[in-house]
This record gives sequence, C-alpha cells and structure tokens, in this order.
Amino acid sequence: MENQEIAEIPIIDDNEELEELKRLRREFHQHPELGWTEFWTTARIAELLEDMGFDVLVGHELYQGGLAELRWGLPDDETLQGFYTLAQERLGENKYLEKMKDGLTGLVAHIRGGEGGPGIGFRFDIDGLPILESAGHHHQPTQDRFSSPLGTMHACGHDGHVAMGLGLAKRVCDNIDSLTGDFYFMFQPSEESARGGFVFSRHELVKKLDHFVALHLGVVKERKLVCDLRFLSSRKFEVTFRGRSAHAALSPQEGKNALLGACTAVVNLYSIPRHSSGLTRLNVGQFHSANAKNVISELAGFQLDVRGENEEICDYMVESAKRILKGAAEMYALELELCDLGFTISTPASPGLKTSIRDAALKAGVPGAAIVNEHFVIGCEDAPFIMKEVQENRGQAAYICLGSPTRGGHHNPEFDFDEDLLIWGVHVLWELALDLSSR
Amino acid sequence: MENQEIAEIPIIDDNEELEELKRLRREFHQHPELGWTEFWTTARIAELLEDMGFDVLVGHELYQGGLAELRWGLPDDETLQGFYTLAQERLGENKYLEKMKDGLTGLVAHIRGGEGGPGIGFRFDIDGLPILESAGHHHQPTQDRFSSPLGTMHACGHDGHVAMGLGLAKRVCDNIDSLTGDFYFMFQPSEESARGGFVFSRHELVKKLDHFVALHLGVVKERKLVCDLRFLSSRKFEVTFRGRSAHAALSPQEGKNALLGACTAVVNLYSIPRHSSGLTRLNVGQFHSANAKNVISELAGFQLDVRGENEEICDYMVESAKRILKGAAEMYALELELCDLGFTISTPASPGLKTSIRDAALKAGVPGAAIVNEHFVIGCEDAPFIMKEVQENRGQAAYICLGSPTRGGHHNPEFDFDEDLLIWGVHVLWELALDLSSR
Amino acid sequence: MENQEIAEIPIIDDNEELEELKRLRREFHQHPELGWTEFWTTARIAELLEDMGFDVLVGHELYQGGLAELRWGLPDDETLQGFYTLAQERLGENKYLEKMKDGLTGLVAHIRGGEGGPGIGFRFDIDGLPILESAGHHHQPTQDRFSSPLGTMHACGHDGHVAMGLGLAKRVCDNIDSLTGDFYFMFQPSEESARGGFVFSRHELVKKLDHFVALHLGVVKERKLVCDLRFLSSRKFEVTFRGRSAHAALSPQEGKNALLGACTAVVNLYSIPRHSSGLTRLNVGQFHSANAKNVISELAGFQLDVRGENEEICDYMVESAKRILKGAAEMYALELELCDLGFTISTPASPGLKTSIRDAALKAGVPGAAIVNEHFVIGCEDAPFIMKEVQENRGQAAYICLGSPTRGGHHNPEFDFDEDLLIWGVHVLWELALDLSSR
Amino acid sequence: MENQEIAEIPIIDDNEELEELKRLRREFHQHPELGWTEFWTTARIAELLEDMGFDVLVGHELYQGGLAELRWGLPDDETLQGFYTLAQERLGENKYLEKMKDGLTGLVAHIRGGEGGPGIGFRFDIDGLPILESAGHHHQPTQDRFSSPLGTMHACGHDGHVAMGLGLAKRVCDNIDSLTGDFYFMFQPSEESARGGFVFSRHELVKKLDHFVALHLGVVKERKLVCDLRFLSSRKFEVTFRGRSAHAALSPQEGKNALLGACTAVVNLYSIPRHSSGLTRLNVGQFHSANAKNVISELAGFQLDVRGENEEICDYMVESAKRILKGAAEMYALELELCDLGFTISTPASPGLKTSIRDAALKAGVPGAAIVNEHFVIGCEDAPFIMKEVQENRGQAAYICLGSPTRGGHHNPEFDFDEDLLIWGVHVLWELALDLSSR
Repeated sequence: MENQEIAEIPIIDDNEELEELKRLRREFHQHPELGWTEFWTTARIAELLEDMGFDVLVGHELYQGGLAELRWGLPDDETLQGFYTLAQERLGENKYLEKMKDGLTGLVAHIRGGEGGPGIGFRFDIDGLPILESAGHHHQPTQDRFSSPLGTMHACGHDGHVAMGLGLAKRVCDNIDSLTGDFYFMFQPSEESARGGFVFSRHELVKKLDHFVALHLGVVKERKLVCDLRFLSSRKFEVTFRGRSAHAALSPQEGKNALLGACTAVVNLYSIPRHSSGLTRLNVGQFHSANAKNVISELAGFQLDVRGENEEICDYMVESAKRILKGAAEMYALELELCDLGFTISTPASPGLKTSIRDAALKAGVPGAAIVNEHFVIGCEDAPFIMKEVQENRGQAAYICLGSPTRGGHHNPEFDFDEDLLIWGVHVLWELALDLSSR
Repeated sequence: MENQEIAEIPIIDDNEELEELKRLRREFHQHPELGWTEFWTTARIAELLEDMGFDVLVGHELYQGGLAELRWGLPDDETLQGFYTLAQERLGENKYLEKMKDGLTGLVAHIRGGEGGPGIGFRFDIDGLPILESAGHHHQPTQDRFSSPLGTMHACGHDGHVAMGLGLAKRVCDNIDSLTGDFYFMFQPSEESARGGFVFSRHELVKKLDHFVALHLGVVKERKLVCDLRFLSSRKFEVTFRGRSAHAALSPQEGKNALLGACTAVVNLYSIPRHSSGLTRLNVGQFHSANAKNVISELAGFQLDVRGENEEICDYMVESAKRILKGAAEMYALELELCDLGFTISTPASPGLKTSIRDAALKAGVPGAAIVNEHFVIGCEDAPFIMKEVQENRGQAAYICLGSPTRGGHHNPEFDFDEDLLIWGVHVLWELALDLSSR
Repeated sequence: MENQEIAEIPIIDDNEELEELKRLRREFHQHPELGWTEFWTTARIAELLEDMGFDVLVGHELYQGGLAELRWGLPDDETLQGFYTLAQERLGENKYLEKMKDGLTGLVAHIRGGEGGPGIGFRFDIDGLPILESAGHHHQPTQDRFSSPLGTMHACGHDGHVAMGLGLAKRVCDNIDSLTGDFYFMFQPSEESARGGFVFSRHELVKKLDHFVALHLGVVKERKLVCDLRFLSSRKFEVTFRGRSAHAALSPQEGKNALLGACTAVVNLYSIPRHSSGLTRLNVGQFHSANAKNVISELAGFQLDVRGENEEICDYMVESAKRILKGAAEMYALELELCDLGFTISTPASPGLKTSIRDAALKAGVPGAAIVNEHFVIGCEDAPFIMKEVQENRGQAAYICLGSPTRGGHHNPEFDFDEDLLIWGVHVLWELALDLSSR
Repeated sequence: MENQEIAEIPIIDDNEELEELKRLRREFHQHPELGWTEFWTTARIAELLEDMGFDVLVGHELYQGGLAELRWGLPDDETLQGFYTLAQERLGENKYLEKMKDGLTGLVAHIRGGEGGPGIGFRFDIDGLPILESAGHHHQPTQDRFSSPLGTMHACGHDGHVAMGLGLAKRVCDNIDSLTGDFYFMFQPSEESARGGFVFSRHELVKKLDHFVALHLGVVKERKLVCDLRFLSSRKFEVTFRGRSAHAALSPQEGKNALLGACTAVVNLYSIPRHSSGLTRLNVGQFHSANAKNVISELAGFQLDVRGENEEICDYMVESAKRILKGAAEMYALELELCDLGFTISTPASPGLKTSIRDAALKAGVPGAAIVNEHFVIGCEDAPFIMKEVQENRGQAAYICLGSPTRGGHHNPEFDFDEDLLIWGVHVLWELALDLSSR
C-alpha cells in the first residue's frame, strides 16, 4: 500500500518563475567568491533587493557594534585584495563595494508589512569554495556555459540558495501590502568555515525575530523535505607542545621531548570512549615536528577536530581530549598551548515552527509521504548560532532541508543539482511566510 | 710479560684454621632462615661470640630507639612464627631467642682493645633465600651432606660471610691485648630485601665508627680482590590507579578507565630516555586489573623498579617516572597512589681506606695483579646505607669483594663456592684490622 | 491529542489465571540455579508439562547427536555437583534428574494439534544469576517471603518467563483440539552466558519450525510491547602474549616483554575508529602479568569484549582488534594466542511475524499507542542463534519485549517486576498462537 | 706524586714551521665548502701537493670503477653549481676544477720512497658546515680577519686537518730519499654526512695500505693524545607509513590511519630496552602528516636515528626498531616503507699500531702522562669504513685524537682551537711515518 503513495517531491518542468530563478542561479554560479571576499556577490544582491524596495544594510553599516572584530579566519591580504579588485573590474564605480573593504561582506535586507505582525527572518548563505570546477562536457554548467573559470566554485549549492532568497524576496515585495510584520533577508557570508553565522548571530536585529528559517538544498539523497535538519556540534583546536631540545646522543636526559608527548597524546586521544547518548567523532591532522633526527624535539603540534551529536556530547569529548593533552604534557614536562580554531553548535528546530513548515510544504504541493520530520547529518553548519540566539529570545527557529540527489556530491568539482528545486524552495518558504505573517 | 704475573688469588688447600671455618660454614649452610626470621642463626652466632668474650646486643636490646619500627617488608605472622618455632625446637630453652620475638633478628658484638684507638666495624649479612636447594649428586653440599632440607637455601654465600665473621672475631679476641680501639661485629639480617642495612645504619653505634668494612664473596667471576665494589642505586614502588567502573557497553562515558591509564603509563615508562652520565634501568611487574571484561576497570596497579648508576641518575629516573605516572592519571581522570617499596643507594669507597685494603691484601698474600681497584655490578646492596652514614660522620667505609667463580651463579639452586675463600677473607680483614688498629 | 491516547499497557489487578501464574513465578523464584545446573528447575517444569499432556525431551534424550559437546563454559565439577545434590535433596528419587547428570539441563516439550498446521516454537530461558538477593524489607520477594536464600537469584526475570511459558502451555493443551499444527516449548538453560541458545539452535527440531518466538520482560522502561527487540552482536576473547623472561637489570636486551606488548595492545585497541553505520563497543578486563618487578615479563594476558550494532560491524571490530593484537605481538617479538570465549549475534524479526505480533497484541488488549515496532538494546542475547537458524530454514522468527519499569534494574540484588505482566505475556502469546495455528 | 707529572701536551709558541701551518689553516678557514662541493679546497690542495712532487688523483680519475655512483646525499644542483661557480671565480681557468664537475671532490696524492717499504695512508677530511660564522670580536678568526663570509664555516677543525696534512706531506717530500715505501695522502670530502669515507673505503688503493691513520683535533677537552678514538655505530632511516584517507566524521571505518600508526611506532620505539653490553641511543625527527584535520591521514613519516656502542649493539637496535615499525604498520593495516639514509660503523684500532702511535707521540715530545690509550665518544665518523677495509686486508689502522679544549665546542658558530696543535699533529704523524717506513 505504502508504495503507491508519492514519496518524493515531484519534478517541475515548465514554469516562468523557475526560468527567472535559473537565470539568477546561473549568474551567481559564474562568480563564486570565498568566505569574507563575497564582494561582487553582495553588491549584486544588494542592487537587486534595493531595486525591489528593500532597505539594505551593507559593509560597515552592517558590522556595527564590534561585529567586525568577531570575524575570524579572514583570508590573507593578498586574497582579500584579489577578490576586491576582481569585483571592481566587474562592477566599475559601485556604492556598495567601498563599504565592504577589508572583508565586511554579506548583507541584511528589510521590508515592513502591515502593523502588528511578527519579525520573520530568512538566512541564505552566499560563499563559494576553493575548488576548480569540472570542465567535463557531461557537467551541465560546462555544457550550458555557466561554469566558473576562477578556480573557485559554488560546489555546495549556495548559488541556488541566493536565487531562492531573491525569488522569495520578490514575492514578499510584490505582496507586501497584504502581509503584516517585518521581513528580514540575511545573505550571510563565510558559512563554509562556520564563521559568518556566528557573527550574524550577534547582530542586534536577531533580537527582533519571532521566526527564523534557514534552508539547504541537497544533503539528503532523495527528493524529500526535512522540517528539522540537525548537525553535529564540533570544536577545532590547534595543539602545540613545547619542550626542550638537546643532542639526542650526547645528552638525551637534558631534552623534553615534545614529539614523544604529542605522539602519546594522539594515540590516547583516539581512545576516548564512545558516549552512549549519541555519536562522537575525533580526528587529528596537520601533525608536524621539524626537529633534526639527532636532536630531541622541542616543538610539536597538530590540529584536533572533535564532534558530538549534541553540545553536551561534544563538551564531553572536549573535556576528555583536554585531559589527555594535559596528561601528555605532564608526562614529558612540556608546556601545552591550546588555540581555538572554531566551533559549531547543534540546535533542534522549535516544535511549533516544525509543524508550520510541514503545513506550508503540504500547501506548496509537497506530498505528505515526501515530508520527513527530522534528519541528522554528520556535518557542521553555522546557522544554529543564529537559531539558538532566536530561541533564547523566545522566538522560533528551524533549519529546512530541500533534499535531492546531486551530481558528484557536495564539495566535489562535478557538483550540480536539479534546478527545479529552486521553485520548490520559493513555494515552501512563501507558504510559510504567509502563514507566519498572518498570525 | 703481563701474563707471567699471577693474576688470581691462589688456591689454599691445607690449613687448620680453614678446616674450622669450613665446619662453621657448613653448620650455618644447613639452617638458612629468611629475612627477619634469622632466629636460630642469630642465637647461634651470639652464643659463639659471647663464649669468645664479646659483649653481644640481641633483640629488643639492639632495636632500641624506634629501630624496630624502621623495619619494613616483614614476613607474615605465620612465616615468622614458623621459623621461630623451628629455632625453639633446635635450641630448647634459649636466652637469646625470647628477645628476638617478632623478628628482632641480627646482632652486634663489641670488644675493646687498648685505649686511644679507633672504632672499627665489620658487617656480615646472615639471611638465606626462599630457594629449594639442589639435590643433584654433583652438588657439593648434597654430596657432603650439609645441604638444607627446609626449602630455604644459603644461595648467595651469606653462610660463608658468617663463618668469616666468626673467624675474624676469633683472631681479634685472641689478640685483643695487642690491639687498640673498639671492634664492632655487625651480623645483619634481611640483606636480600635491602632492608636490614637501612635499619642498622640508623643504630647509634654507627656514629662511633671511624672505619667500616663490608665484604661479599663471589660476584666477580675471577679470583680477584676488589677494593671498592659499587652497586646501582634503586627505588621500588607500588603504583595504583583508581578510576570509576561503569558498564562498558551501556555507559562507557561514565567510566574512568584505570586499566587504560595504567597501560599508557607502562608504555611511556619504558621510553624514559637514557642518561648520558651512566646506566639506567626500569622495569614493571605484577600488573593486575581484575575488572570483568564488560566493565570499565576501576582499579589497576603494578610494581615499578628503577635503577641508576648513582643516586643522581636514579633520582632522574624516579622524577621522570613520577611525571609519567601523574600524566597518565591526569589523562584518564584517575587517582594515583604511589607507595614506596624500598630503595638502595650507591656509595664509592673512601679513598684512604681503599689504599689500606690494597695494602692489607698484599700483606695477606694476594698477588698485586689479582687486586682490582674498583668494579661496578648491576645489582643492589644495603650496606651502602651504613657506609654513607659512616662517611657523613667523617669516618671511612668500603665494600670489598672477594671475587671467585661460583657454581650455578648467585640465587641458583646449585650455588656453591670454593671454601678456601673463607681463610682468604679472614686473612685480608685481619691484616686490615691490624693496620687500622695501629693508627 | 496524542497525549489522550493510552500509551502504556494497562495494569491488571484481579484475575484468577494471574494468581496461578504468580504462584508459579514465586515457586521458581525461590530456586534459582546457574547456567547448566538448572536441575531442579528443569525437573519441575518437566513434571508440570508432562502432567498437562506434553511429550517432554530431557537430558541425554535432548542432547543427542553431539549437542552435549557443543556446550561451553560449563561450571566446575564442584558447582555442578553442588546444584545436583541440592536438587536431589528437594526432589528425592526423580526420573528426570538422572538424565541430566553432567549439566544436560533444559527441556523441549511437544504437543500436536490438528493435521496440516505449522510448526510453532516458543523459547523461555530458565537460568538464574550468581547474585545474593536483597534482604531489604522494601524488596517485595523478601516481604512476601519468596526470596532466594541460596546466593543465587532470578534477577533478570527468567522466573517470570518460566511462569508465562507454563501458563501458555496450559492454554495450548486445554485447547489442543481446536488448534492445528505442532507446538514446541523450549525451556532453555544458560542464557546469561549466551551459550544455551547456541546449543538449542543446533537441535534438529529447529528445522521443523515455521514460526519461532522468544520473549523478555522488563528491558524497556515503559509498559510497552516491542514487536522486534534487537541486540548487539558480540565476540569475547582470551588474549595471551608469550615472550621471554630475562633479568631486567642484568640483561634487558635478552627479554621479550609480554607486558609491554599487552599494554601497547590495550592502548591501541581502544582507538579502533567508530563505524559510521552503527554502534561499536570494546573493553578489556582481567589483565594480568605476574612477573617479578626485576624480571622482564614472559606472559601477560587479558580478556577482550567487542560488540557491534550488527554482525558486519562486529566483524569490523574483531578484524581491527586482531590486527592490533598481531601488530603488538610483532612489535615485541611475542607469540600471540587468541582463544574464543563466546559470541552472540543479532537478527531482525521477520517482517510478517512482526505484523502478526502487532495484531495479536491489539487483540490481547494492548493499546495501539503502547505497541512499538522495534527497539534496540545495548545488550546481548542468545535467542538470535535460534532465530537465524529458523529464518535460514525459511521460517519466521521474532523477539518480543514485554516492556516494564523494574525495581533496581536487571542483574541487581533488588530486581523485581510487576507480576501482572505475566498474564499479559500469556494473553499476547496465546493470541499469536491462535493466529499462527489457523493459517 | 702523580700531580707533578706533566699531564697535558705543552703549548708551543715560537716555531717557523708552525707559522706556515697557521697561514695555511687560515687560508682554508676562509673558504669552507659543504660536502661534495669542495671544489676550491680540492683544487688548492692539489696544486700545493703537485708542486711538492706528489702524483695527484682528482675528479673522474679518482672516482673510477663506479665510485661516483656510491656517493649519496648529494646536494641539489643549485648548491653544487653555486659552489662550482664560486670556485671558478676564485681560480679562473683551472685544470683540476673541470675534472670535479658534478661533485667529484677530494683527492689522493701519492709519492714513492725506497723499494721494499710498506704502503702507508693518511686521511684528512676537508669539508665545512652550513653554519654562519660568529662576527663577535672576541672570536679570533674575526679579530684576525680570516673568518668566512659565506654562511658556511670550518666549525669542526677540518681546516686544521688540511693544514696538518699539507705540513706532513712537505716533510715526507723533503725526506723522500731517506724513506722506504709508498705514501698516500687522502684528502677526503663529505665527512660530516659520513658519506665520503664510505666511498673512499671502496677505492682500490685501500688494498695497498699496510698502515692507515686518521686524526681529529679537539673532541677530548684536555690536551691529551688519544691513541685509539672510538665512535658509535649508527643507522639512519626515512620511515613512511601509507594508509588510506577517509572522511573522519562520515566514514571513519573506511580509513587506515597512517598518523595513528606512526605515533604508535614513535611511542614504542623509545621503549626499546637498554643493552647491557653497551650504550644505545634512538631518536625520531622530521615527523610530518599533512592530512586535514577532518580527514584520516593517508601518509605519515619521520626520520629515525639509532646508535650503539658497537656494530652488534647497533644491529640489536635496528632489529628491534624494525620489528616495532612492522608491528605498528600491521596494527593499522598500513604499508611500511623503510629507506636507508646512511650509517656509520665503529672499529677499534689495531693493537700494534696503537703501540707505534704511543712511541711516536713520546718521541715527538708528548709527555707520557698526556697519552691516553683509548677513548670513547658518543659521535659518529666515517673513517672507520676505511679502517675496517684496511684491517680486513691484514693491514693496521687507527684513529688518533689530538685532544684540546676548543672555544664554543664543535659545530658552533664560535668554534676555534689552539693553533699550536697543528705543529704537534705534524710532529706526531711524522715520527709515526718514520717508524712505519723503517720497518
């Protein structure tokens, strides 16, 4: 019986609005920019939204109140300057561009409906990846001549997110007279390094949001709509052990062997026990000790990546790892330096909003059997920083997944997706906006 | 040319005094008693020395001033009582035996020569080993019917040491009128566990010694006299890690894995680096963790034995080991308990006394080419506790080795030695006593 | 809305049949016997079933065709004899008892309904645990005076399983004329060590089963009926490393350090990576190396317990562990001996039988909201050996859980359960029997 | 009494020949060249020796019979070419230079005395170090303006060795009519990397040597002449583990963790037990694994340096290390690649030649109390390759040390030595040459 139900989101072929979304997606696909260098992307979105009627906050206007200092993992000056110059060449004189100097990319656009309505926020991430796009002729963007020639690539679908954001914005603008409440469109930079979401979560506008929704396409391999996509919490560290060098043959007892301490730490880090409440992960990379082979190592270090199914489990992994690192340092009389390289958190969707999403999806035409209540992925995201902030301010937040098979898989030179998903995204978010606005 | 010199101590065959020494040695060989249970041995020596004219301190008279409490590693009550009862059966009513109850074994005998002479001390160790003596007919003690039937054995030559001590005591007594100074004969218990020497080193009489000499036969495999035999310093520990048990499948994260911490400690203990100034040794034994295989270990422990060519190097090993143990405990959130199981030290001979020993050996008939200035053995001894105390009181101390090949090797069921060494020991020590007394 | 549904199995108070089941349960509760020593338990069940009209296979009649040799982990002779004597004292002359000598415990009872029906098997486990039952007055068995005075205890509910088995058997007998097919009641010994199920799975009668059901009470903490209870697959090993002893100070290079190899193995065993397809567990216990602290260890060993969410994952863990053990042996030139201590497997329920169980539960009065499709527990069971055999013979098999909160938890001295579960078990199994029989 | 003896080599101040030796040493000090790039140094020595009357073998004439291929650890082309160009600039057109292209540096010079005499070889090493010489004004070479401006430095005294070799060669030439036998002067390249000695040891002329002597100044911190300087045997390896990468969070079980294997290897390498027959050393350096922190490492490696007091002990270390490396690879299913980076051996001096050296030193004016029979240094040398070859051909070989305190220590930017040692070296070697020649 179950097999007769339509369990996937149907394919849409012919649709005028979709054609416009595809056009937008393809334009952005050709200009992928790395995190904190989305100069052209931001300027182009700002221009389109301002034309629609939005108030747009860009650059230093957006990063007020110390937000600029919260950014971390900025690219080096050469990279920043390189993408800036490229954007200048494409845009010529541009009022947005100057405001973004030094990597103040991304924007927030605002439009107000009738009085007495809620604050509603949508987040779309806009950054590309340092991947050289496939030139294979079976790769659709190559065939249709919209692939990126820059050595950077939209290989995670953020070009589609931008297009959906603009499509949704258009509908909101066109119908603003019949809507109540404030609509905020956040086009967020630097998601891939999980850094932009943290900065945006500290923006004061977040306090005004009664509802917040982020969305990703792909991820789940079937055409299903997931009302509550969940991620792993994670922490990343740079670990350094400092010892004392000594001639390894003449006076081994004088040395404090940083390499030996680091190796002991690695072996023991991998043996942190499983947690019975959920998934855990740990890995070590970038291990280096440059000492000559006849000299006791005075400096050794590595990067550490730990993850847990939720924050509590992630904390358990971090605490266990820190104890092991301290113990290894103690063993060999080393100094330990632990430097934070970033983190992500995990937040479940607000139950009420989950129900609204299901209803919106049904209205938008998603078959009931293609709606999944929640799904867990072993990956990381930074939208949960904003979600958690909203939830702590008594608002509701959720992360939707517009599932779909993709070519090549995410972060792959041959990544591509079914473009009809774009209109599905706009449909569902629009139905949700209507519902939330009418409360 | 060198080969023509006599490079070994010659063999002595026919000698009346030697016959008496052999008789004594064989008597003691038949009654080996373990450390702190040398009831019969002590009583028998006391009796012989008192008959010669010595004042003898035995039992609680000897262990005054808290010395009894300094003993450690006492055998269990059953063992103590067993050897006591055996001694009672052999001796009948005995004035010495009662004083020794609870393991106050060993004795010090004193005799005084002319006024104005020095305090001279000799130490002979008297304990046997828990080894079942060989019943092989090629084993001389079996052939000549003086082997031990008790499951204990004089397998390290202490029976010979006792005989030499008694032989030397006899000569001193017989010639006391022509000697000046005070002569102390220390018949020390429990050398094998390195515990008797420590207790004796705290006895107040040690402060009265201007010269102190200990002696061992065998050890060096040639018939050479070593003026200064040196040992490794050592420390022994009982190591215990306490964690928390938990069901290993249901809630592994609740456990604190004592076994894992102990294994990590062991692996890292063996990697303490070599010391460029001298020998180091480390070993682990008696490792146990009794947890069921589906329960996280809450208790694991082992014994640790570290050694160094001198005290400084031994301290280096101990410090390194402690750091590793602490680090391993820290790693797995364990409590660490470190319990001292004993230690030995290493002291070089006093240079002046070394020269006197060489001279005495030459006078006693030891060929110059058979005299070795110093020799290092990878073993431990407790006489250095007394030596160091004497040296710190401005006295002189040395440890002589009366080298010789032995059958079977020390601590072996077939251990045996050339009995003519006994007369050589008496000769050399007597010449030394004459020399020191005449100063 | 959902909250208004009755989501738990209701409590039944007053019921004549329940009174009889409680009486039976309490009788068996007072006589818990360990695995392979269930002499009295088996004899008593046999007697009751034979009185009802069953053909009963006991002892050597049951263990034909080499089955007796498949048993492993038999208790020592003293334990076997002890429980046998106890059973003799209670039973006097007994025709069943003699057949069971040497631990051939457990039984299979058979009764035949009308022609042309299926083979239907039920399995009930009958062994107790080596736990001293609580004497606390809040412990119901103590209060009501049916606790066990033997130092053994039914602390996992097998007394209840026996009672339900007998209750079901009675209904089957009473209604045999209206039933078709062959009914087999397996009262299986030694489940706790996961050994009885393996032996029974090799019995030829298993080939005759079209349907097979096992059941456990408790486990899940709410009063829910689980149609498909799943377990971890597991493997247990005795690991021994053999090296070569040597004096740790005199000739360390002569040794092959079994302790060091074993410690290295332990540290690395715990770092086998997680498996992304499901749960894994690993633990080490019973670690011993008896070497003296100044002797290199020549023999060290431990027990190893690995588990996985299914057989494939368990195999992954076993393969990884074996590689680490071999590598550690190679490292220190040791010989490795790996001895199997047992294993359990994991089998999902047959889909059709699952549906039948749901229907039977509904008919028996279990509310729909109290029926759970499947549930996974981090524990091990041996019924899956039989289930797999049945399924491979094209039969259907399932493991039902009659969930309930328990006092103290399983394997605890204060374990106890709601006795009204007994009648629920009989109801559900009886409805299932009716349904299966009518096909 | 002993203190009154002159226990050190006296200081010589005023001596014409010494002035010439100092001039030579200072010339070579200003032009230090790295191993296999000693173009200028070789050409200059060749010129001087040919002027004296020697037959000189240089470049491809020297490296016949496949010797060129035996060289390893050649510098990169840029370095080779750089030093070559520098030599060209200094020397202009030069007949030796061209023969040495591609790093065929060093030379052997030969002169023949009267018939019937022995073959006598001397070896002097000629390479400098990649050390920037101190510009401190207390540094004598800076004060006296002969320090090196090139970023390379004679910081191990090889400039002095060259001067002594030339001084000895002059005496031999000047007196060739009164000497019998064949004199070979080997000016050997690339000693610091222990590679030149191996190549020279395979030269056919080595078979003609009845006596072979190498010499080093400094090393021992007092002005003593050591007749037999001994070194550690050593082996160096490049170790590579190859595994398989996998996403550390998505599919950890797919990876084969090369980093984890390498860390386990390191921890266990350091625990290879001490050897009771002599010194051992082990160290690891240059440890790298470049994997990203969220990817399982597929490649990790390090360099390994093991040493032993003699070849047997060194072999013991190598065997133990290899077993540990193999075991670690086995543990994590890795491929192990072991690449030889070089080795040195250790050879005791021939006893007869030792006696001749003592006699020569006495004749040269070295006080008896300043002559040391043998001395052991924890360092490595490549002359033993030649020594062993000579000894296996029934010749005699020895390594003399002309001990002296040095400023700064060997391989230090402030290294310097007492230049009067130069004349002592010539004296002693000349007396030895006279003695050996007259046999």
